[in-house]
Amino acid sequence: MMLSDLRAAFAGRLLTEAADTAPFLTDWRRKWTGRALAVAQPDTAADVAAVVRWCHAQRVAVVPQGGNTGLSGGATPDGSGHAIVLSTARLNRVRSLDPMGNTLTSEAGVTLQQVQHAAQEADRLFPLSLAAQGTCTIGGNLATNAGGVQVLRYGNARALCLGLEVVTADGQLWDGLRALRKDNTGYDLRDLFIGSEGTLGVITAAVLQLFPRPAAQVAAFVAVPSPADALGLLALAQARLGAGLTAFELVSDTCLGLVERHVSAARRPLADASPWYVLIELSDTRSETEATAQLESLLEAALEAGHATDAAVSTSVAQFRCLWALREDISESQGAEGPAIKHDIALPIARIPDFIATTDASLARHFPDLRLVVFGHLGDGNLHYNLSPAPGATGAADRAAIAALEAPVNRLVHDAVHAHGGSISAEHGLGLLRRDESARCKSAVELQLMHAIKRALDPLNLMNPGKLLAPEPTP
Amino acid sequence: MMLSDLRAAFAGRLLTEAADTAPFLTDWRRKWTGRALAVAQPDTAADVAAVVRWCHAQRVAVVPQGGNTGLSGGATPDGSGHAIVLSTARLNRVRSLDPMGNTLTSEAGVTLQQVQHAAQEADRLFPLSLAAQGTCTIGGNLATNAGGVQVLRYGNARALCLGLEVVTADGQLWDGLRALRKDNTGYDLRDLFIGSEGTLGVITAAVLQLFPRPAAQVAAFVAVPSPADALGLLALAQARLGAGLTAFELVSDTCLGLVERHVSAARRPLADASPWYVLIELSDTRSETEATAQLESLLEAALEAGHATDAAVSTSVAQFRCLWALREDISESQGAEGPAIKHDIALPIARIPDFIATTDASLARHFPDLRLVVFGHLGDGNLHYNLSPAPGATGAADRAAIAALEAPVNRLVHDAVHAHGGSISAEHGLGLLRRDESARCKSAVELQLMHAIKRALDPLNLMNPGKLLAPEPTP
Repeated sequence: MMLSDLRAAFAGRLLTEAADTAPFLTDWRRKWTGRALAVAQPDTAADVAAVVRWCHAQRVAVVPQGGNTGLSGGATPDGSGHAIVLSTARLNRVRSLDPMGNTLTSEAGVTLQQVQHAAQEADRLFPLSLAAQGTCTIGGNLATNAGGVQVLRYGNARALCLGLEVVTADGQLWDGLRALRKDNTGYDLRDLFIGSEGTLGVITAAVLQLFPRPAAQVAAFVAVPSPADALGLLALAQARLGAGLTAFELVSDTCLGLVERHVSAARRPLADASPWYVLIELSDTRSETEATAQLESLLEAALEAGHATDAAVSTSVAQFRCLWALREDISESQGAEGPAIKHDIALPIARIPDFIATTDASLARHFPDLRLVVFGHLGDGNLHYNLSPAPGATGAADRAAIAALEAPVNRLVHDAVHAHGGSISAEHGLGLLRRDESARCKSAVELQLMHAIKRALDPLNLMNPGKLLAPEPTP
Repeated sequence: MMLSDLRAAFAGRLLTEAADTAPFLTDWRRKWTGRALAVAQPDTAADVAAVVRWCHAQRVAVVPQGGNTGLSGGATPDGSGHAIVLSTARLNRVRSLDPMGNTLTSEAGVTLQQVQHAAQEADRLFPLSLAAQGTCTIGGNLATNAGGVQVLRYGNARALCLGLEVVTADGQLWDGLRALRKDNTGYDLRDLFIGSEGTLGVITAAVLQLFPRPAAQVAAFVAVPSPADALGLLALAQARLGAGLTAFELVSDTCLGLVERHVSAARRPLADASPWYVLIELSDTRSETEATAQLESLLEAALEAGHATDAAVSTSVAQFRCLWALREDISESQGAEGPAIKHDIALPIARIPDFIATTDASLARHFPDLRLVVFGHLGDGNLHYNLSPAPGATGAADRAAIAALEAPVNRLVHDAVHAHGGSISAEHGLGLLRRDESARCKSAVELQLMHAIKRALDPLNLMNPGKLLAPEPTP
């Protein structure tokens, strides 16, 4: 096996020096570090196919990598040093934009923010939005079926993709770049590759769905007595705002306190503290006046029904951004309190109050030194149900102590999620982080079906091996 | 192989008398008639699994059938007489409805209309809507990824399904009935079974997504000079109405003339004829007054821009229904003109005017005796691009003549669709009708991927064999 043959096989860059490859071998959270033969950065989809064909012929594993912002270790090679990291960095062109059809065709390595901007320049909205958007790529967003804050209205990455271009495990290029809203001509290959975390093939381009840009957006920060009241408010908001309701985020008072402590510009928008808050975003095709009136009318009804005790409504773009920052700065503020134990869970929405009550109590009983830091996309049933160490516990011994708690805490929380009919990975994917916990929650028949698909599309187990699914036991 | 063993293996009915089985052996359009060992109607999902296990052990094919309203022959057994038709008629329970989570769990044999009614009783909307809704079943809707008139706003059947229960080809029951909006824990089995037309397994139940019911709906019937103007109107409507735009249907003057001729209650809503019309539906969460004002403002802008020449807006529920009837009665009215050659195609929306102009001209050149009957879901890029014989040509010789034209006309239209980046089956599926035409339009790599999946999940080729995919050539 000669890397010089690989270098000659495609147009693009092949990184082999340790200084060049290092950034691709450790994940963003620095939880995993691996090794690789080289990092390939092909110029085009045809070059991706050439790289994969070489790997296939040489029986070399391929680890696709976009912006390397994943939280589950899905883009980091293992320690064997026998894999090629396939970086999509040079697949960085927006190929076309069709304003009438409301579609945009992007290569995999374009960042989410670049796609958002391209849409905006054509007076359109690409609604996928998440913290890593300046660095994460469309290919990675699709490979992990990314979520974010607008899923309630527009769906996750899967729902925003009409067509895909994929290099298969044996290095063929599948052109499934259909810009169609309806296409019932066989198995849904698109949705099979979306969310498969690079284990079935490499996404090289996608047709994305755009939307009209709303004329106005307003936000409200609402004090709610309990998660059950947050759901009462959600039901009211859905009935009154319909598709105008574009975000519905839950924030605990603990979260707000952390943001206040660590972000100097942060100000509490309400006079009195409340155990919980909800951030509501309303988007409107008409005007800010109409939107504000509709939102205020909703809040009056919520106050009257007892689902809310106070609320602040944005009256300018600056205020709108300040209210959103209170939500968006939670993760970083939690980070400043020492290492966290994180969960990315989804639940049937109606079961969330019971889940929170019983799981909070169970955690307090078994892990009394941990603090709950709960927030998330309540409108989608998606909670970031996190834990932090006690205030000030940030020394080396504290770090070791919390690292030792991660597995038992994960287990307790995931068991509770499973018992409530939920999912242990709502929007971050499985990668290495949740692979085995997920297998524990799935039925034998579901795992059999997944393994059968993996064997069918990647019989040599070369595509991102060990991610998402544990290797099958050899019979 | 003893049918008495099968009879003993499950709870439900087993029909073997010719008089009992006949309705299950011919499709709704009477294009295909097959034979079967028996028709099984299991009582529960576990009984479906028992039937499939028996078939698997005996190497007997399984042909799943819901309401038998499909248009592509996907639910009719072949002529061998070796298959069991698996009717979902007795899987007829709505298992649960969660108004807070906006979900409904239904068994496969519940009709679409029953699901709509169950949602309505809980003050919710299940938006899937199509002509066969009184008879077609949720299982069939999902197996064929049905579309209909509200896809523009709410998506097709795929987009309305959160979870599935499926009996696999070897008779295992997969419980994937997740009532979650986010779940990134592995391969998307749900979307693989949806649209697979019973060739990978039998859908026995589904979790469906509900929506708030709109407070008001108004419709406008709009005269537009050309398909390009219809698109201009669509762009205006999307920008101004956003998600309030719940239907955008194209109707040619020929279609309206057929409805006028064959439906005695039908009245033209506009004084002057126009080559094309658009039916717009606006749904609003506030009131009919607001909705009407918004729609009228849109129509003023469209008249000013020259995209519309006249319009009628509904001012009562009765008028709303009358305008919709003009669209819904087209199929039946076309049927009264003799046998038709039908197409269910999807195109990138911006390419529709060019497709219509060039394909109309090509058809007129090659098949001058046929009349074009064009209508469809323009907002989704989905046209029912149909042809009828000349007026009065309904005799036996005419029928034979048009039957002989079907294949060459299909070929011409499908080639044009393919050249315009479209799909030859937008919402009806492939079944037998479009199976080979679809294969002609697909790349070798796409067909390879589909066959690999079929082999992986149904290695004995027992699930609805010969539908959707032609059997693989034996090597």
